[in-house]
Amino acid sequence: MLYLIGLGLSDEKDVTVRGLEAIKKSERVYLEAYTSILGVGKERLEAFYEKEIIVADRDMVETESDAILERANEVDVSFLVVGDPFGATTHSDLLLRAEALSIPYVVIHNASVMNAVGAVGLALYNYGQTISIPYFTESWRPDSWLDRIRENLSLDLHTLCLLDIKVKEQSIENLARGRKIYEPPRFMSVPTAIEQLLSLLPPPLPRKDDETSTLSDPTTTDSSPFTAPSPSNWLDPSRTLCISLSRIGDPSQTFVSGTLEELSHLDEDAFGGPLHSLVIVGKRFHALERDFARRWAVDKENWDRVAKEVYGVRD
Amino acid sequence: MLYLIGLGLSDEKDVTVRGLEAIKKSERVYLEAYTSILGVGKERLEAFYEKEIIVADRDMVETESDAILERANEVDVSFLVVGDPFGATTHSDLLLRAEALSIPYVVIHNASVMNAVGAVGLALYNYGQTISIPYFTESWRPDSWLDRIRENLSLDLHTLCLLDIKVKEQSIENLARGRKIYEPPRFMSVPTAIEQLLSLLPPPLPRKDDETSTLSDPTTTDSSPFTAPSPSNWLDPSRTLCISLSRIGDPSQTFVSGTLEELSHLDEDAFGGPLHSLVIVGKRFHALERDFARRWAVDKENWDRVAKEVYGVRD
Repeated sequence: MLYLIGLGLSDEKDVTVRGLEAIKKSERVYLEAYTSILGVGKERLEAFYEKEIIVADRDMVETESDAILERANEVDVSFLVVGDPFGATTHSDLLLRAEALSIPYVVIHNASVMNAVGAVGLALYNYGQTISIPYFTESWRPDSWLDRIRENLSLDLHTLCLLDIKVKEQSIENLARGRKIYEPPRFMSVPTAIEQLLSLLPPPLPRKDDETSTLSDPTTTDSSPFTAPSPSNWLDPSRTLCISLSRIGDPSQTFVSGTLEELSHLDEDAFGGPLHSLVIVGKRFHALERDFARRWAVDKENWDRVAKEVYGVRD
Repeated sequence: MLYLIGLGLSDEKDVTVRGLEAIKKSERVYLEAYTSILGVGKERLEAFYEKEIIVADRDMVETESDAILERANEVDVSFLVVGDPFGATTHSDLLLRAEALSIPYVVIHNASVMNAVGAVGLALYNYGQTISIPYFTESWRPDSWLDRIRENLSLDLHTLCLLDIKVKEQSIENLARGRKIYEPPRFMSVPTAIEQLLSLLPPPLPRKDDETSTLSDPTTTDSSPFTAPSPSNWLDPSRTLCISLSRIGDPSQTFVSGTLEELSHLDEDAFGGPLHSLVIVGKRFHALERDFARRWAVDKENWDRVAKEVYGVRD
């Protein structure tokens, strides 16, 4: 039997009882280690499971899946994934390959950031599509994710933004020379994510102090600032609320709430350790949610003011 | 300490090791029993935890939260929620009340249908907002959820539809007379959900066999069948793919895939036991996903044909 087991979010005790039982009886245990990380290292897992763990990088999962599946129709094999097995990537190819080899499989689910983001207090029903914000390089500045945020905001929906991680990446030079030398892991910080986001927006139009962007928009009767037609106005960093989450599910988890502008000015240390995510708040935002997230606000007065003036939140 | 603990999806062993430890050391253990159900009864949980469980219905959570929180600053109290603690409802009011009483709290996450739906093989990134389909009554046929499906489809996104459950509901007569007599629990089936959905759509326009709805739409260059302006055309049951999921995370979980029309004609037994959910597939649909879900198709040939002709899936 192949067990595809979610490990949850933080440490060795976030596995489910059912998952732990499957690991304990497995002959081989693999850990998928390229889409996310736990807050603890492989050694802590090995000590808790009393099992040796084989780390499976992207190469191994994508090109050597038959090695992972070897004899899994005779013995139990566990394939561990941080979060939920279907969170970051569906692993469909591994499961279809198992089926082609007549290997039965069982999926053991767990929390992932895709549902644990509920902890910031916004109803999960009001989230649109989740996006990933990739690291920009000098020559590569993809921006399609910005359209996804805009689509969500146009429907008044929140956006969960997952911030890039680089684990076991090679430099272009090492890649070209075929040298298996890897760069140190990198985890995108919240200020970097916001900085990249703002760098893609056109410069703001000059605006009178007493005039909001929506008032100048004759095509809509909606008061949303996000549906204004001017490309420089659809997202105003001083009038867009967001909530960052770091190490969600860990005892050290940290939330910070405020406008995009406020969060962009904070020191990286204010956000806690990686992994980081960012929620951009849409207009389906209610008084209880405002109160819940106010506890982490950079500036509580401004949080309430923007919630009222831009989001129309009433008590 | 107040522990808010997700139980996961199926049975007593889906709790995490961390969650089980918290339950074991708690003086009182409550089970929130109105937004979802496990596949096993309270007795199985009590035997496994070696703890008595107090079932907390909606009344108790909403009006007697201080009883739940009593002395939780001195002793440990566990509040158990099926799925993830923030899945169906955020429980923000309970947590804010705890904070007002200076009671510290810890959230222990788990899988919920909101992320376990990944098991049907569609990338979680390509889901839009999740909706609930409520039971219609003779006098109450809410339809705003239909707009949400349409919004998602207009962005080519999938929709997770959660089907209504009625637990501990009173009849109107018993409610009016103040009699605490409750109806037997009801769980919406997939055919009922689809029937309700189709009943809200206008009758289809007459259409030539060789003409698709989109060809007659001069306002779009997109080939999506969902953006056609005619209200009778935006969702065509014979040209819309969906995947049902039942008892997700349980050994008896059942998936069925096909067009809305195909699934509407199946017997309820084909879908397995409750709880049921339904995914309506958007156009961000890829060959590997088609292959993965084809395994559960009512009619595999038709599944592939619609994927190709309507969704534009190429090998």
